[in-house]
Amino acid sequence: MKNVEVCLTPDLVKTYGVENKIVVVVDILRATSVMTTALAHGIQSITPVASVEECQCLKDSGYLAAAERDGKTVDGFDFGNSPFTYMDKSLAGKKLAVTTTNGTLAITRSVEAEEVVVGSFLNISSVANYLINQPHDVMILCAGWKGRVNLEDTLFAGALIELLGNAFDSENDSAIAAVALYRMAKDDMMGFLKNSSHAKRLKGLSIIKDIDFCLQRDVYDIIPVLKDGELVIREKTYAEL
Amino acid sequence: MKNVEVCLTPDLVKTYGVENKIVVVVDILRATSVMTTALAHGIQSITPVASVEECQCLKDSGYLAAAERDGKTVDGFDFGNSPFTYMDKSLAGKKLAVTTTNGTLAITRSVEAEEVVVGSFLNISSVANYLINQPHDVMILCAGWKGRVNLEDTLFAGALIELLGNAFDSENDSAIAAVALYRMAKDDMMGFLKNSSHAKRLKGLSIIKDIDFCLQRDVYDIIPVLKDGELVIREKTYAEL
Repeated sequence: MKNVEVCLTPDLVKTYGVENKIVVVVDILRATSVMTTALAHGIQSITPVASVEECQCLKDSGYLAAAERDGKTVDGFDFGNSPFTYMDKSLAGKKLAVTTTNGTLAITRSVEAEEVVVGSFLNISSVANYLINQPHDVMILCAGWKGRVNLEDTLFAGALIELLGNAFDSENDSAIAAVALYRMAKDDMMGFLKNSSHAKRLKGLSIIKDIDFCLQRDVYDIIPVLKDGELVIREKTYAEL
Repeated sequence: MKNVEVCLTPDLVKTYGVENKIVVVVDILRATSVMTTALAHGIQSITPVASVEECQCLKDSGYLAAAERDGKTVDGFDFGNSPFTYMDKSLAGKKLAVTTTNGTLAITRSVEAEEVVVGSFLNISSVANYLINQPHDVMILCAGWKGRVNLEDTLFAGALIELLGNAFDSENDSAIAAVALYRMAKDDMMGFLKNSSHAKRLKGLSIIKDIDFCLQRDVYDIIPVLKDGELVIREKTYAEL
């Protein structure tokens, strides 16, 4: 049977290994929620880069560019890390370069995987259905916060595993913990998160509206995947149409 | 206010840092439970070493020696990783060298800490009372399994934080997660753990009796601490007597 495991921070990726696995990268607040939103609203591709310098370089060559550090937009960049920024028809068809504190690192550490998929509550059912209907083991990679574990990404991991149902073996300890935490929190995720370190950081930045949006399920029916260094919407195969 | 945080595996120690902190190392199944038991039954000191070779070297120079890998006693060593082995009056006063798959690594990665304390359910209240009455921040370091997160050490972290009560700020995400999991599991820890990876491994080794023993609270009123490379029972200060 296929196996699903949870890697609670990018600092543990080497411990688990990504070879032959589909890695679902998750940074609920807010990188992967934003990426899903941007692609759903017509952005052509998103190039995740590790450094602000690389992001600046792509900006100079014509990309839209979003650089975030410690939850704030870096000076000199057009776009930040709020999903609402990307609900703008005039951006359709454009290429976006992104660097964030945690989410882009999780993606760059996963490039050796069979496939890298971007997950968020906004597209959770689409991601679950895709995973169920493919043959590989899955690692849900939580972006965390600067190498540390965070609650919101862990809750997403639990929610996704619950949707995977019997299609996967999920009896490893971090998967069991994630599912248990999600079941406890699911009726009031905002309440459960209100004491979390990240929600507090974000509250300080006045973006409760962003958090509310990012905790919504199934707003979009797309699956962003990494292809030649760019995140694009996965095209359905002939059999899926 | 003092802070308590949870480091879910030794592979994340560098991310959190140990400087000026008291590190409570925990490997419930079974290293730190065994260490607590052995010292409580009169073993004079326990020297944790990283390799089987170092353990052999100390054995050759007269130590009792316990070497465990993958839950099994290494060939040629007298003592394994069962707490019942150490309830033997004839061992009193002797020095023990120990190497285990996870627990000794967690200790050796913590040597730069203000103090290294060995925790287990068997001495949890003693450890909690000690932590409450000292001035340093605390990291609970879960030994995990080969760098991965495990449930039993996470549950211990939650149980210990609950005992610390209002004496510490515990609003970091891994502490919140550990407490939530512990509250969910505490009335039937064995049931909660029965699907965990480690319990399954140990079940394969027929040591349910060991697990039952290691999940008991407050069997011993001692605090093992690391002193000059050896674990010894912490002596009470004049003020504590």
